[in-house]
Amino acid sequence: MASDTSAQEKTVSEAGEFGLIHRVTSGRPQPPSTLLGPGDDAAVLAAPDGRVVATTDVLVEQVHFRFDWSSPHQVGRKAVAVNLSDLAAMGAVPTGLLVGMGAPPETATGVVDDLAAGMWEEAQRAGTGLAGGDMVGAPVLTLSITALGDLQGRTPVTRGGARPGDVVAVAGRLGWAAAGLAVLGRGFRSPVAVVGAQRVPEPPYAAGPAAADAGATAMIDTSDGLLADLAHIAEASQVSIDVRSELVEVPQRLTEVASALGADARHWVLTGGEDQALVATFPPDLPLPEGWRALGEVGEGTGVTVDGAGYEGSAGWEHWR
Amino acid sequence: MASDTSAQEKTVSEAGEFGLIHRVTSGRPQPPSTLLGPGDDAAVLAAPDGRVVATTDVLVEQVHFRFDWSSPHQVGRKAVAVNLSDLAAMGAVPTGLLVGMGAPPETATGVVDDLAAGMWEEAQRAGTGLAGGDMVGAPVLTLSITALGDLQGRTPVTRGGARPGDVVAVAGRLGWAAAGLAVLGRGFRSPVAVVGAQRVPEPPYAAGPAAADAGATAMIDTSDGLLADLAHIAEASQVSIDVRSELVEVPQRLTEVASALGADARHWVLTGGEDQALVATFPPDLPLPEGWRALGEVGEGTGVTVDGAGYEGSAGWEHWR
Repeated sequence: MASDTSAQEKTVSEAGEFGLIHRVTSGRPQPPSTLLGPGDDAAVLAAPDGRVVATTDVLVEQVHFRFDWSSPHQVGRKAVAVNLSDLAAMGAVPTGLLVGMGAPPETATGVVDDLAAGMWEEAQRAGTGLAGGDMVGAPVLTLSITALGDLQGRTPVTRGGARPGDVVAVAGRLGWAAAGLAVLGRGFRSPVAVVGAQRVPEPPYAAGPAAADAGATAMIDTSDGLLADLAHIAEASQVSIDVRSELVEVPQRLTEVASALGADARHWVLTGGEDQALVATFPPDLPLPEGWRALGEVGEGTGVTVDGAGYEGSAGWEHWR
Repeated sequence: MASDTSAQEKTVSEAGEFGLIHRVTSGRPQPPSTLLGPGDDAAVLAAPDGRVVATTDVLVEQVHFRFDWSSPHQVGRKAVAVNLSDLAAMGAVPTGLLVGMGAPPETATGVVDDLAAGMWEEAQRAGTGLAGGDMVGAPVLTLSITALGDLQGRTPVTRGGARPGDVVAVAGRLGWAAAGLAVLGRGFRSPVAVVGAQRVPEPPYAAGPAAADAGATAMIDTSDGLLADLAHIAEASQVSIDVRSELVEVPQRLTEVASALGADARHWVLTGGEDQALVATFPPDLPLPEGWRALGEVGEGTGVTVDGAGYEGSAGWEHWR
């Protein structure tokens, strides 16, 4: 990326729109699903299934990320991860990403380079790449990422298919990002394990298509928190969901951090957002696929409970609220 | 849209994320290509061709639009139009839109309603709809729109296929948006014909697929201005392009407006951006499809000329420059 010319461009204003697009895309290997990559009016991606799964997320500096807490590389990874986990939650595999970026003119080109490097790293972890985008001036750094995916013949797993008697299960980590947020909020930078989880989630990408193949009836990723996201399934499926606390693993590491902060690790696991775990419901007579662990059960009625009772503070995160 | 509940929500902060999504999407008819619409982790759109064309544009208040010049409804239409014209410029028809919106908490819900109504109106003019999106808090109103389209078996028309001897042709209006910008910049609100063209472009959507069917070798939409966008074709195709001034129609209405402002109408036609016309190159032995008019010719070499000579001020619009 660092040609003699680009090294002299210190800000996005000096690099210009086309210079920035070049910095972000040149020399990056596109996956086979990119039939036409960056540089034209639009990208062309393979959609072998005859359907395309599409999701978009907008991340704004100071609202969704802070550069005093996360590096641009980490922000780039997270911005891509939250989108790719939405694809996984439908049972799809990614075929490409479009990145819209708004940046103040004085933004250092190194910030854009590092954001792009983080985006590419996370995209490549999931087997995909950045196929296109748009770069504009804006008063605050804004990332708008669209992820496209292929169902490979699967029925998309919505939030609305859970049935009474189904098993509720999770793949991926719960509570780690919330623990990291609590640590960062107190002004600490360690333990790295939880701070790192807040900075960059580790969505279990392969667990989404595996769940769809195993017959999952409903699925969602945990951006708002376990109970809040289960409430989305319960509402869309018109069922109730009960989480059994004896099935909810509270990792020792989180217990230690909570103890040091005077916080409740179980609360982080039940309500903490931004882990991008996958939660799904499965018919009770089927074995859970690898990486999935049972958490509770679907019943008649409405709402989400823990051991049959309401759980305070399960509303999750909603913008402007 | 205006239920008793939503009528009482005066700001996006009061409506909340889910309330806003409801306001923007409920009761809107989705096109048949929307297999799964708003409300889940991702949308699912038809991709009958086995490929999907994807493009994204970010529009920021005060950078790309001003509410003292344009209504929210007009901004919504324009935001969608600039994306759909990118699809047309590839030879594709739209299958769905994803809308990312960042808004300050004090934004009136009426503004969001009107933006959405404008987006839906323009989408429906092109036969498509809003299939999904994301609503977040942001310090300034930001719209990030992704348009997806289907090639219906066509070869995508890139910027890179123009060959010496090809005819350069245009479909749609040139110079009208620049005239409108000049009028608005002087503090006037009329003539409506040019001011309206600045507020809402009228891309000739059908002319894109028609050009692809007719054998167009390269195509682009005029967001930066005729000469600047032809320069993108010339560069990508490694050819030169000469525009013949006797073929460039300068509408009487623009001449009148230019005369009143002491401006040059021909300059608007040659360099004005934001009209979202389509310009394309065609093999010389083929008849131009309906709605297309010849403007010049492709030659060996590089660069864009008018009557064989350089034209000052043809660089077009580039962000941060």
